[in-house]
Amino acid sequence: MKKLLAESFGTFWLVFGGCGSALFAAGYPELGIGFAGVALAFGLTVLTMAYAVGHISGGHFNPAVTVGLWAGGRFQGKDIPSYIVAQCVGALAAAGCLYTILLGKTGFTMDNTKASVFATNGYGAFSPDGYNMASVFIAEFLLTMFFLIIILGATDRLANGKFAGIAIGLGLTLIHLISIPISNTSVNPARSLSQAIFAGGIPMQQVWVFWVAPIFGAIIGGWMYTYILQKKN
Amino acid sequence: MKKLLAESFGTFWLVFGGCGSALFAAGYPELGIGFAGVALAFGLTVLTMAYAVGHISGGHFNPAVTVGLWAGGRFQGKDIPSYIVAQCVGALAAAGCLYTILLGKTGFTMDNTKASVFATNGYGAFSPDGYNMASVFIAEFLLTMFFLIIILGATDRLANGKFAGIAIGLGLTLIHLISIPISNTSVNPARSLSQAIFAGGIPMQQVWVFWVAPIFGAIIGGWMYTYILQKKN
Amino acid sequence: MKKLLAESFGTFWLVFGGCGSALFAAGYPELGIGFAGVALAFGLTVLTMAYAVGHISGGHFNPAVTVGLWAGGRFQGKDIPSYIVAQCVGALAAAGCLYTILLGKTGFTMDNTKASVFATNGYGAFSPDGYNMASVFIAEFLLTMFFLIIILGATDRLANGKFAGIAIGLGLTLIHLISIPISNTSVNPARSLSQAIFAGGIPMQQVWVFWVAPIFGAIIGGWMYTYILQKKN
Amino acid sequence: MKKLLAESFGTFWLVFGGCGSALFAAGYPELGIGFAGVALAFGLTVLTMAYAVGHISGGHFNPAVTVGLWAGGRFQGKDIPSYIVAQCVGALAAAGCLYTILLGKTGFTMDNTKASVFATNGYGAFSPDGYNMASVFIAEFLLTMFFLIIILGATDRLANGKFAGIAIGLGLTLIHLISIPISNTSVNPARSLSQAIFAGGIPMQQVWVFWVAPIFGAIIGGWMYTYILQKKN
Repeated sequence: MKKLLAESFGTFWLVFGGCGSALFAAGYPELGIGFAGVALAFGLTVLTMAYAVGHISGGHFNPAVTVGLWAGGRFQGKDIPSYIVAQCVGALAAAGCLYTILLGKTGFTMDNTKASVFATNGYGAFSPDGYNMASVFIAEFLLTMFFLIIILGATDRLANGKFAGIAIGLGLTLIHLISIPISNTSVNPARSLSQAIFAGGIPMQQVWVFWVAPIFGAIIGGWMYTYILQKKN
Repeated sequence: MKKLLAESFGTFWLVFGGCGSALFAAGYPELGIGFAGVALAFGLTVLTMAYAVGHISGGHFNPAVTVGLWAGGRFQGKDIPSYIVAQCVGALAAAGCLYTILLGKTGFTMDNTKASVFATNGYGAFSPDGYNMASVFIAEFLLTMFFLIIILGATDRLANGKFAGIAIGLGLTLIHLISIPISNTSVNPARSLSQAIFAGGIPMQQVWVFWVAPIFGAIIGGWMYTYILQKKN
Repeated sequence: MKKLLAESFGTFWLVFGGCGSALFAAGYPELGIGFAGVALAFGLTVLTMAYAVGHISGGHFNPAVTVGLWAGGRFQGKDIPSYIVAQCVGALAAAGCLYTILLGKTGFTMDNTKASVFATNGYGAFSPDGYNMASVFIAEFLLTMFFLIIILGATDRLANGKFAGIAIGLGLTLIHLISIPISNTSVNPARSLSQAIFAGGIPMQQVWVFWVAPIFGAIIGGWMYTYILQKKN
Repeated sequence: MKKLLAESFGTFWLVFGGCGSALFAAGYPELGIGFAGVALAFGLTVLTMAYAVGHISGGHFNPAVTVGLWAGGRFQGKDIPSYIVAQCVGALAAAGCLYTILLGKTGFTMDNTKASVFATNGYGAFSPDGYNMASVFIAEFLLTMFFLIIILGATDRLANGKFAGIAIGLGLTLIHLISIPISNTSVNPARSLSQAIFAGGIPMQQVWVFWVAPIFGAIIGGWMYTYILQKKN
């Protein structure tokens, strides 16, 4: 139970911090933090929660990571559903808090006919820089695959222990530095769902891509690290 | 006594570095560091002082943190007042130094009818991006709550020891990446007071919010980590 | 064999992440990550892969590093060719993926008469800020020389062990912060080749400089650390 | 002798990387790294060299640090002159390399009637944002004083060992985030001298401030940490 609570809290923080920095701070005139600031924010949500509650739940905060760790033999299949539910609950609660705070902003409106509304992910007309579905799928697949390789490698028994939170968190920053213009960057189905539900419309219709591509990439990445790359099986 | 001195020095550095970067460097034409640079600066004040004097005083540098650590059972109630006084003294001294340096700048004036004057926090017309009091309160409450969860988790006996300075410092960076446009980011009553006293006017009238919301959030966060989340009580 | 696979994966990630962030995100209007974001991305590719697969292959991801480590007595000469082939294969695969993703972007074209086309390196008219070949050569030479000093020093038996991934990764970030305007920053022949092959034209004709200067600098740096600077030979 | 070589190399890298990023990359149109990028670059020069050669020489790379460590009882007075000479030699060599590379840039000129020419430090009309000598002196004094507190604290026997390179390097980043607009940030007499000699004119006449203020601040900071703050004398 504490594990699930830790996953909920961690995923809340990931969505509240990552999507929140995008919603509140990215486009502020002149002084805004831009995509680089959002990339840093997403990474730091994971870095901070890895050190804060990682020792309780393992620190996934992401359904694709949970599935990928199972594919890599590091997580029991029977615990997948409860972890994913806990992550989605945390993500939705965070989205609700973000929405509540935005309601208190002078002149706030939400236009779900535009890309990146309420920090949603999307492709085609809903990609920030106009990438089609194939490009978005390839990017999300590859990035989540490498994210899992980083996670499994950095937490490898033969590797680097306590440094894992830094490597994994900054790995998520890197992933956002690459791909915000492509898909607004998901690699995390819970993060995508939480934003799409509040936005509705086309972003909600596209959200399946941000479940399928990251989870598919995570499975390949998890499997690849453990059964192809790892030093000792 | 050395503990109190360390808290004063640390809080001086937090205000001098964090608010100083905002005052001197954020809005410099074209090359300025923007909100992302200020966020990094605030985080690095805590990261550096945690490694420099954290082993002397515990490295709070923030009245809300001191109270939250007490709520989480990590700090003795009888030491709270002296810690908070030491923090406020350091913060005020830093604000004085910032003001003195600004007096030596060509054309410096201070207009306390505008948001963010002298790095003050505020809501409504004094929020950088026009958020009302409820939104500011929720944001400050949630961010300080999670800040305490990060602090207690990262310094947990079962966790990560020496990495805590990195996780906590970068956690404060993350908090600023999210919320500078909302409230100019406090999560630290001493930091808020130090700026409001020099600015006067409305910012001084609003400063109570930046004592109540962070301290309330810190108490909940500290209590929640120790009595709900923590692996072994 | 696992070592070569790890080198291929790591170099794939370096090119996909570093060059990808430049291609997708650097110049996005207003919110783009700029050269600083690209510099951070390149560094984080190495930081993350050092922790992920560094314990498998040593984590070179760069032909100049492989040669420089040999010059510093840390790598066997007979393994150089296979490492370099593995690195180039990974880099080319990454360039192919980047190209494929860009094909799915509305209005994508590739104009190899301009500097920095497809993240290529160059001098003269193909230097981002108009530096001639001598300046580019000196910069690439010096930066790779110091990169090797950082690598050998940070992995020195008497030094800092697990921190090496941080120092080396952020060292690459630093190198890019300095020199993107000069040569678009190589210090890595595999990275340069992968981009030049796809771009063709002048960038392909200039690519030899980004093999000769980095490898020459790496040999001097590797030799200098081990035989001049190191505490005990 | 190896110690002096390490100090020369480290200070070369500090000036080449820190001042180089300012000269080559800070003001590049639209994509330039700005003051925040320069701040990061300066910090990373120290972070990387601390891990690379810090175990050889102690990693000062700065005459003020050398003197401050002596004031704090961590360095022998008789070694001060040779360390400072080695640092200045490295800094001057770096300035020479920067100048040589700039000569190969289309349209390069050097106008020493303007602030920040060739990355020089200055006050009054030669302060980037118009701060007078008193403000510059106070800022340089305070920042170097805290820099020494960070250095002595982070390398304290009771503190954090291997993390010192991160805390000290990022401490220098923080110092630059605060004060580039004030004085173009020195806190390092060797860095200031190396730029002033190449620029000549008023910057050379003002360079004494950037020896006196940092060294004075370093002495106070070093003394304060060891004899006032430190847990056990």
